[in-house]
Amino acid sequence: MYKANIHITLRQSILDPQGKATQHALHNLGFGDVNKVRMGKFVEMWIETSDKDAAQTIAEEACAKLMANPVMEDYSFTLEPVD
Amino acid sequence: MYKANIHITLRQSILDPQGKATQHALHNLGFGDVNKVRMGKFVEMWIETSDKDAAQTIAEEACAKLMANPVMEDYSFTLEPVD
Repeated sequence: MYKANIHITLRQSILDPQGKATQHALHNLGFGDVNKVRMGKFVEMWIETSDKDAAQTIAEEACAKLMANPVMEDYSFTLEPVD
Repeated sequence: MYKANIHITLRQSILDPQGKATQHALHNLGFGDVNKVRMGKFVEMWIETSDKDAAQTIAEEACAKLMANPVMEDYSFTLEPVD
């Protein structure tokens, strides 16, 4: 079995109000050194296959077809074998 | 400057309906090999300091005080130097 660790982030040009709000909250809590915050998603996906290439294809297609919005988001993932 | 890459995940014992819904949607799209999906957050935080220990402390406290819900979530982060 493989586990895909998927990172989905907003594209640089897209405003991130949730990240801005978090940054302001951190400033108010005394974390003045925090310059910028961007919020993304972290998806863990367990894939029932022993073939790494197959797992790669499944994770790639799952991201492209369902997980990420291709207009606003970028995605990347790593695969690790698990029991 | 340092960038903290923060992963916030639901604890194993906490149900994840968003992950379940994603898994079902993937099954319906033909991804029958996807066994389990868990949704978490990925936070990128830029910290204005050249001292790695200071960045470590800021990221740790920001997670504990604001980002993560200690009852339901676990967090971890890595630091990387950036320009």
